[in-house]
Amino acid sequence: MRMTVTDQYLANNAEYAKSFNGPLPLPPSKHIAIVACMDARLDVYRALGINEGEAHVIRNAGGVVTADEIRSLAISQRLLGTTEIVLIHHTDCGMLTFTDDDFKRDIQAEIGQKPEWAAEAFSDIDEDLRQSLNRIKNSPYITKTSSLRGFVFDVATGLLREVS
Amino acid sequence: MRMTVTDQYLANNAEYAKSFNGPLPLPPSKHIAIVACMDARLDVYRALGINEGEAHVIRNAGGVVTADEIRSLAISQRLLGTTEIVLIHHTDCGMLTFTDDDFKRDIQAEIGQKPEWAAEAFSDIDEDLRQSLNRIKNSPYITKTSSLRGFVFDVATGLLREVS
Repeated sequence: MRMTVTDQYLANNAEYAKSFNGPLPLPPSKHIAIVACMDARLDVYRALGINEGEAHVIRNAGGVVTADEIRSLAISQRLLGTTEIVLIHHTDCGMLTFTDDDFKRDIQAEIGQKPEWAAEAFSDIDEDLRQSLNRIKNSPYITKTSSLRGFVFDVATGLLREVS
Repeated sequence: MRMTVTDQYLANNAEYAKSFNGPLPLPPSKHIAIVACMDARLDVYRALGINEGEAHVIRNAGGVVTADEIRSLAISQRLLGTTEIVLIHHTDCGMLTFTDDDFKRDIQAEIGQKPEWAAEAFSDIDEDLRQSLNRIKNSPYITKTSSLRGFVFDVATGLLREVS
């Protein structure tokens, strides 16, 4: 039987657990939440020097703020005491390579039904990051924010560039 | 002026970039997507031995599958070629500590308005993991899956336990 990647990762996990020291406390010790793209090249803990237990890490396609990120941030702030928020988009993002209309038509062609949700594709990384910042600023449910900043991660250099 | 955690993480990032080798290709080289809780103690890359460029990592409060995770997984599969999916919930989760009704009432008491979304709190970690597995199985938009498995990460031991 072929070994899946999941099986390989399970074997890695058994090794990881051998030197694991837990449990740490539940609330993030640095009171911060990161919202980042799911991109495989962005290892958020390493790229920001985050240690275990410090920060909530929320990720999706694009690092776009949708209702589910508002849900996660509201829980993060109200129940677990975070106040800083960092958004991270990145260069060479897959979300720059298609349009919502084409994506939906492709799904419709395969299964005869269009998604009822927006794919959230975008054509300008800085503009979309500002969109996501504004969705947080404009949400009535995110009320404990002490700092909100957005960055673009450069997949060539590993550096964050702030967008204001 | 007080240095924020965001400022500290930016300083860490400048160090990280000094030894960064990029860019890697955009599609995940191991063709896998992970959906995990945002919990600060779960360093997904380290816990599964994931190297940069291998896997999409999607995270939110609880590791619950909502419309936004279906969106991210559909983009991951259709545009970037992933076929395996791993879901990760964990012990001592914040989502076990409240109810949707109480959470919504608390927000209503503060701002005079209830969220229009579910908070997705749960009382049984295995049962909620099965819920999320079923939401993927039942979604018409996730059509390229070769493997779908769910695990509970133990924050005391660092080990994954499979739920079937």
